[in-house]
Amino acid sequence: MCLYTNNLNSILEHINSPKDLKSLHQKDLGQLAIELREFIIDIVSVKEGHLGASLGVVELTIALLYVFNTPVDKLIWDVGHQAYGHKILTGRKDIFDTNRQFGGISGFPKMKESEFDAFGTGHSSTSISALLGMALSAQLQGKIERQHIAVIGDASIASGMAFEGLNHAGVTNANILIVLNDNAMGIDPSVGALKKYLTNVKTGTAKEENIFECLNFHYTGPIDGHDLPLLVQQLKQLQKIEGPKLLHVITTKGKGLQKAEENQVTYHAPGKFDRQTGELQKKNGAVEAPKFQDVFGKTIVELALKNEKIVGITPAMPTGSSLKYMMEAIPERAYDVGIAEQHAVTLAAGMAADGLIVFCNIYSTFLQRAYDQVIHDVALQNLPVIFCLDRAGLVGEDGPTHHGVFDIAYLRCIPNLTIFSPLNEMALRNIMYTAQLGLDHPIAIRYPRGRGKTLNWQLPMKKITIGKGEILKKGTKIAIISTGPIGNMISDMLIDLDEPDEIAHYNFPFIKPLDSVLLKEILQNFEHIITIEDGSSINGFGSAVLEFANIVGINKIIKIFGVPDNFITHGNTQKLYKKAGIDKMSVKKYVQQFL
Amino acid sequence: MCLYTNNLNSILEHINSPKDLKSLHQKDLGQLAIELREFIIDIVSVKEGHLGASLGVVELTIALLYVFNTPVDKLIWDVGHQAYGHKILTGRKDIFDTNRQFGGISGFPKMKESEFDAFGTGHSSTSISALLGMALSAQLQGKIERQHIAVIGDASIASGMAFEGLNHAGVTNANILIVLNDNAMGIDPSVGALKKYLTNVKTGTAKEENIFECLNFHYTGPIDGHDLPLLVQQLKQLQKIEGPKLLHVITTKGKGLQKAEENQVTYHAPGKFDRQTGELQKKNGAVEAPKFQDVFGKTIVELALKNEKIVGITPAMPTGSSLKYMMEAIPERAYDVGIAEQHAVTLAAGMAADGLIVFCNIYSTFLQRAYDQVIHDVALQNLPVIFCLDRAGLVGEDGPTHHGVFDIAYLRCIPNLTIFSPLNEMALRNIMYTAQLGLDHPIAIRYPRGRGKTLNWQLPMKKITIGKGEILKKGTKIAIISTGPIGNMISDMLIDLDEPDEIAHYNFPFIKPLDSVLLKEILQNFEHIITIEDGSSINGFGSAVLEFANIVGINKIIKIFGVPDNFITHGNTQKLYKKAGIDKMSVKKYVQQFL
Repeated sequence: MCLYTNNLNSILEHINSPKDLKSLHQKDLGQLAIELREFIIDIVSVKEGHLGASLGVVELTIALLYVFNTPVDKLIWDVGHQAYGHKILTGRKDIFDTNRQFGGISGFPKMKESEFDAFGTGHSSTSISALLGMALSAQLQGKIERQHIAVIGDASIASGMAFEGLNHAGVTNANILIVLNDNAMGIDPSVGALKKYLTNVKTGTAKEENIFECLNFHYTGPIDGHDLPLLVQQLKQLQKIEGPKLLHVITTKGKGLQKAEENQVTYHAPGKFDRQTGELQKKNGAVEAPKFQDVFGKTIVELALKNEKIVGITPAMPTGSSLKYMMEAIPERAYDVGIAEQHAVTLAAGMAADGLIVFCNIYSTFLQRAYDQVIHDVALQNLPVIFCLDRAGLVGEDGPTHHGVFDIAYLRCIPNLTIFSPLNEMALRNIMYTAQLGLDHPIAIRYPRGRGKTLNWQLPMKKITIGKGEILKKGTKIAIISTGPIGNMISDMLIDLDEPDEIAHYNFPFIKPLDSVLLKEILQNFEHIITIEDGSSINGFGSAVLEFANIVGINKIIKIFGVPDNFITHGNTQKLYKKAGIDKMSVKKYVQQFL
Repeated sequence: MCLYTNNLNSILEHINSPKDLKSLHQKDLGQLAIELREFIIDIVSVKEGHLGASLGVVELTIALLYVFNTPVDKLIWDVGHQAYGHKILTGRKDIFDTNRQFGGISGFPKMKESEFDAFGTGHSSTSISALLGMALSAQLQGKIERQHIAVIGDASIASGMAFEGLNHAGVTNANILIVLNDNAMGIDPSVGALKKYLTNVKTGTAKEENIFECLNFHYTGPIDGHDLPLLVQQLKQLQKIEGPKLLHVITTKGKGLQKAEENQVTYHAPGKFDRQTGELQKKNGAVEAPKFQDVFGKTIVELALKNEKIVGITPAMPTGSSLKYMMEAIPERAYDVGIAEQHAVTLAAGMAADGLIVFCNIYSTFLQRAYDQVIHDVALQNLPVIFCLDRAGLVGEDGPTHHGVFDIAYLRCIPNLTIFSPLNEMALRNIMYTAQLGLDHPIAIRYPRGRGKTLNWQLPMKKITIGKGEILKKGTKIAIISTGPIGNMISDMLIDLDEPDEIAHYNFPFIKPLDSVLLKEILQNFEHIITIEDGSSINGFGSAVLEFANIVGINKIIKIFGVPDNFITHGNTQKLYKKAGIDKMSVKKYVQQFL
């Protein structure tokens, strides 16, 4: 179903590639911008997705594709959730309603999807480095006419990796243009000294020299990023200038939909909404179990109000992680450090070294950005930082750039580190409570995106014994050992099955250290051993069980259910679980052969 | 043995803590600087270690300890190899001759070693984040008088993580002082736009506003970092200023030893030398096998001269990695990007996306800094970047911050990635040759610090079949499967043993993909299976073998020799191998029980 009504007077209707766009008269671009914005709103209001960022760069997208010669010229969208307009104008208009769905197009630029996507993105701040790589390659390969453009937001450019790219680019004569899309927002409002500085530039209070000029860039701006003629003119001018250039463009996130402009955080990815009024679609009245995020966010406030040594850190995800509750309630102890995972972790280490109790909340996929800091600054010094790894496991529509499936594998080899995956909301609360009482080691608590199962979750908290597993259901023949909330799926499956007496179910929230006493007992007593987790089947929880069995000398075959050794696509998690072979049906089928 | 001759007229003789130092008259500090420099030269000339960096900050070290109230005030040395003077003046003078030796003091600051080491370092660019954590902690805990100082070099401050720290610090009122120790050098000369900018600042050609002022720091400098009275005066003044401050200090690396000043790269860590003349101690005339580093460095030149698509990248390690050979021979295709591992990897990805054949050489321990980029920018897009992981395994005297023992574990879970560990120099050459012919996937080639075994190594190169293992020695009862150069130790052991007919030895250079045919055969045919590697025993090569055996349904106990689950100290590698239980003796003892 294409929601966009055919209209022969429409300009967008006739744009199937940048070539079509380039054949337009410049005066028609304004009309195209109106239609493109409508098109995005039409589809995202029904199909959901990232709204605000793409609305903000409608004019910029049109101007870039109008002026430059893509796909020969290389255009990279940093992060990429602002690239909806780009996708629509580069041949994906008719399938844009499949955006982010299983089997549909990706919500991010993707090289395999289109030659117009010069480089795949998803995580922030990679564009400058990738672009510079291509520009240096062009020099070596004699592609002297080729242009290279990256669009990067003010929140992303403040990340360390972007600085590394700028720092290198500034001493090359590479033909690159960095378009700084300054809307003073990431997902949440931008933070940091650079943001403050950019504000000064915009208001004219910054002094003479420009920070980008210090780094040897040809700086232009700031200019109004919604002024199409001005954008076209400036881009054409910059096209003629060689070497590294930066164009500073001011845009409004959510531009063109009043509610999205007014509530930029909410309308970053608003879910379904009324395409006329912008009103968010109300949920049906059913009482739902809480999001794990809110359990984290409300529990840290509860704990911090009683324990004044507690601080919270998030790298640019106050809303996503729900640390916002603490930022509202106890602002002096809750830090949003911007897109700066490396800094976040070592800041946490510094605080922990001085006796604070630090909850450092980072998405599982983004902790990959701070892996060295976890090893070198936290674990090596055995500082009891409490990592809360949000969005562990398969995250759904954001897809392979964002799945948190490697964390168990990359953390399990780190000495001193405890790894915990709660079965449910209460377990998350209890481990948070336990951790803030004071641990001898750092701990990583991994939990998924989305809702748990427990309506009545705000119960008094209890101390958890480190390294203890538990039996959830007795059985005689087959032992299923699960870690994390996927255990609830196993419990459901056991209810479904006819002959449950033969199957035992154990919950091992501690992935490290394992409950060696209980595990040995299980390994000795059961004919069939099954493990299940929502992370990599290589080096994950199953492998931990296998390594343990090998060390204690029990050589039994262990069936490991985990995410297979390939990148899992985007789509709703139910479909992804099935694709990964860790769904209820797959486990059921496996166990039934032994019943 | 303390090499420093007792001298009652010596000032240093009487300094056993900063308290003693602070009781000195300021006019005596110059004499102390002379003695401290002598002391460092005396010991490092015989005992080896990092020389140049520590000589460069002698005055700065004295001034900091003189002015500030350590250990109450927090002093962090970024990277930390410049902290010898600090160690000597803070109670470790008498044991300084044990520096970097097994059982001796660490070559880097270490919290457990001294209360004066406010934070452990080793990898660069962590100091600002850790310091800010402590300063924010001080605010929360009412330690309002406490001062916080980090000393960071110009190469380290250009790394992304340092920028993240500055960017956060600039919007706080945290009481921190960043001392920028600007000697225009890392281990190799500094690179990048910021370095160029700092040069402009020093020569007075930079325009009015300062880049650190843009980031909201109170900037002072540049000043002569060897002028003790000036340093003391400036530090005292800065002590009174609240909020984030940066003092820009110009120093000469190697200061006080002429040869070290003239050859700053060589004298970063010169080995033994004549303490009077500075002449390096000549090696005995014996012909030695090459360093793996030189095999890499010379082979890439050899290949790149024939294949013009080849480029080389190093993040600030041209000398250490030996990419310097390519930088000399083919400068336009060899890039030193500075201490910027994240950028290096995504730059490589951008180049590979445009058809270049990219060798990205990063120390194993430093690839931890670019873990996300390996997953998100390279492997997810299946770009055939060739990673050369230098200093994999136990590195020796640099110790736990630098051991490359986690790479197999953290890489093995990444889809699409091939992992290879050469047995010897020829295997390294051959895999480099094979990789540049064009691979379908990215590859990580891991090899150790130091020398191989083969004198005649510059032989014609041969193509290697991806995923193939080999038998090195036949046997009947016990199979030892090794990966990497540790296989040579096994070969030696087999020669030592009396009954070698029972022991087979297999070399598996491919850690991923495994040679499944050969491995299945081994698993089926031998009574005892042993694996050995120089990396983490959790999630390493042994675990890969175990996972494979489990999947194909062969449940045999596999004895895994690998680095145990704790951080291994510093010292010579032979001692560390023994400590880790992966030495010849340990393996011998294990196999002998079956003979």
